Amino acid sequence: MSADSLPREMLITADFSELRRSVAAARHAGQIIGCVPTMGALHAGHISLMQQAHAECDFVIATLFVNPTQFGPQEDLQKYPRPFEADCDKCRVAGVDLLFHPSVESIYPPGYSTFVEVEGLTTKWEGAVRPTHFRGVTTVVAKLLNLTQPDKAYFGQKDFQQQAIIRRMCRDLDMPTEIVTCPTVRDPDGLALSSRNAYLNVTERASGLSLYRALCLARDKVRTGEKDLAAIRLAMRAEMEQTPGVAVDYATIADPDSLVELNEPQPRMVALVAARVGPTRLIDNRLIP
Amino acid sequence: MSADSLPREMLITADFSELRRSVAAARHAGQIIGCVPTMGALHAGHISLMQQAHAECDFVIATLFVNPTQFGPQEDLQKYPRPFEADCDKCRVAGVDLLFHPSVESIYPPGYSTFVEVEGLTTKWEGAVRPTHFRGVTTVVAKLLNLTQPDKAYFGQKDFQQQAIIRRMCRDLDMPTEIVTCPTVRDPDGLALSSRNAYLNVTERASGLSLYRALCLARDKVRTGEKDLAAIRLAMRAEMEQTPGVAVDYATIADPDSLVELNEPQPRMVALVAARVGPTRLIDNRLIP
Repeated sequence: MSADSLPREMLITADFSELRRSVAAARHAGQIIGCVPTMGALHAGHISLMQQAHAECDFVIATLFVNPTQFGPQEDLQKYPRPFEADCDKCRVAGVDLLFHPSVESIYPPGYSTFVEVEGLTTKWEGAVRPTHFRGVTTVVAKLLNLTQPDKAYFGQKDFQQQAIIRRMCRDLDMPTEIVTCPTVRDPDGLALSSRNAYLNVTERASGLSLYRALCLARDKVRTGEKDLAAIRLAMRAEMEQTPGVAVDYATIADPDSLVELNEPQPRMVALVAARVGPTRLIDNRLIP
Repeated sequence: MSADSLPREMLITADFSELRRSVAAARHAGQIIGCVPTMGALHAGHISLMQQAHAECDFVIATLFVNPTQFGPQEDLQKYPRPFEADCDKCRVAGVDLLFHPSVESIYPPGYSTFVEVEGLTTKWEGAVRPTHFRGVTTVVAKLLNLTQPDKAYFGQKDFQQQAIIRRMCRDLDMPTEIVTCPTVRDPDGLALSSRNAYLNVTERASGLSLYRALCLARDKVRTGEKDLAAIRLAMRAEMEQTPGVAVDYATIADPDSLVELNEPQPRMVALVAARVGPTRLIDNRLIP
């Protein structure tokens, strides 16, 4: 816990050596180091990660890097929002001590050829639709954790499959970092916050709420004793498909660790949905119960 | 540098928590940590790595793990020598402070599914003959470096491609460890030390010397002004092929970093050879000049 409640200076750097020196100094001072990897375009979901890191750690590093290797060839790498100055201000207010924003060339120098892959977990759900996405995520997160050497790293539950994969990677590779998953932050009407919500027009945003309705429906059905998970999946899908402009990618109930679709109810489950709403792809999830 | 020249106790453990505690204590005491990953069956080549680590570091960890994922299905995993007590004694004499010998089950627990892959470098030479070998090596070395968090890790030049790949992996993944490559240790007649030399009978051992002769021949030819690298490769191959019982896998002159075969001489080159001698596969290399 930080004993210091005064406003602190935030170091902003793209320099690997400066980052390593700062991390070494914090480590030498016996500080607990937290890391919040982001692609910028920060919203209240990211801020909640930084605030939790600030509450649990002495030295909070946020990373801001729009990682090209996790975008597919048809995806929105070029138009992905990059409001750098606003992001810096938000980090500062959220209690970040160091903002690391490396260049693409320094993260992937000439001759770059190493990739970290988690098998199995990465081919399901999002991985089926975005075949190279998670390889890009695990590789860049491994690099950022090696660079920042945090005690804890914070990820949002919103990207449920991502946090499950990163958790598995850290366990499998014996990385000395605890993965902390923080609750999804939602607008008052239930829409999960996402940098991609900025692409939605008013009609699409209203349709996007069908994902949250499908998740609530699944939770309510389990809560009231429905045991037929196949029937619940069909009801989730129907809830979304009856909404104008929504094309469902998947609607499932799965094991939270293996992400395998479940046939029988079990104590811990997760409902996962993905759909295209107009040109924008949305995902959401909810733990059950 | 260790100021302590008295004999020290060596901790022997298979326990991850005990390893992490010891590393944390050494780190907290400001010690420089060195790591020497091995598969055991230690010979003077391994010992030289440990001695160099002992000379350059305060706290030396040797790891002893016969890694199943780097053996092919037709390879010698089951019969690979495992003289544990003798290995412990050798480590102790060489100045090792901690010997970590994890079980296969603790390194690869149920559900294990993460792999580190270096592309390009791993498909050439040894990788062409042993398609999954280097994926197994990079994955287990990443794990061992994450567990031991060393400032320096020591590898033998004997496995030239391996050290080049591990060097690339550490650079690409921003791992906070310096890779130190130590000179190949040879018998007086030139045979490079290898745990697999134990498989050679007297006749095969004599034939195995042809690999070293081919390397010396390449070096001599470059030294005396030969510019035709294709001609040198042919001469290297002929030197080995004219030896009874030797089946050449490759004989080349390559760039030491990219391992790409060279057509024109350049300041830094490496001669690489591999051959089967009876049932045993031998490799060797020499930097030129």
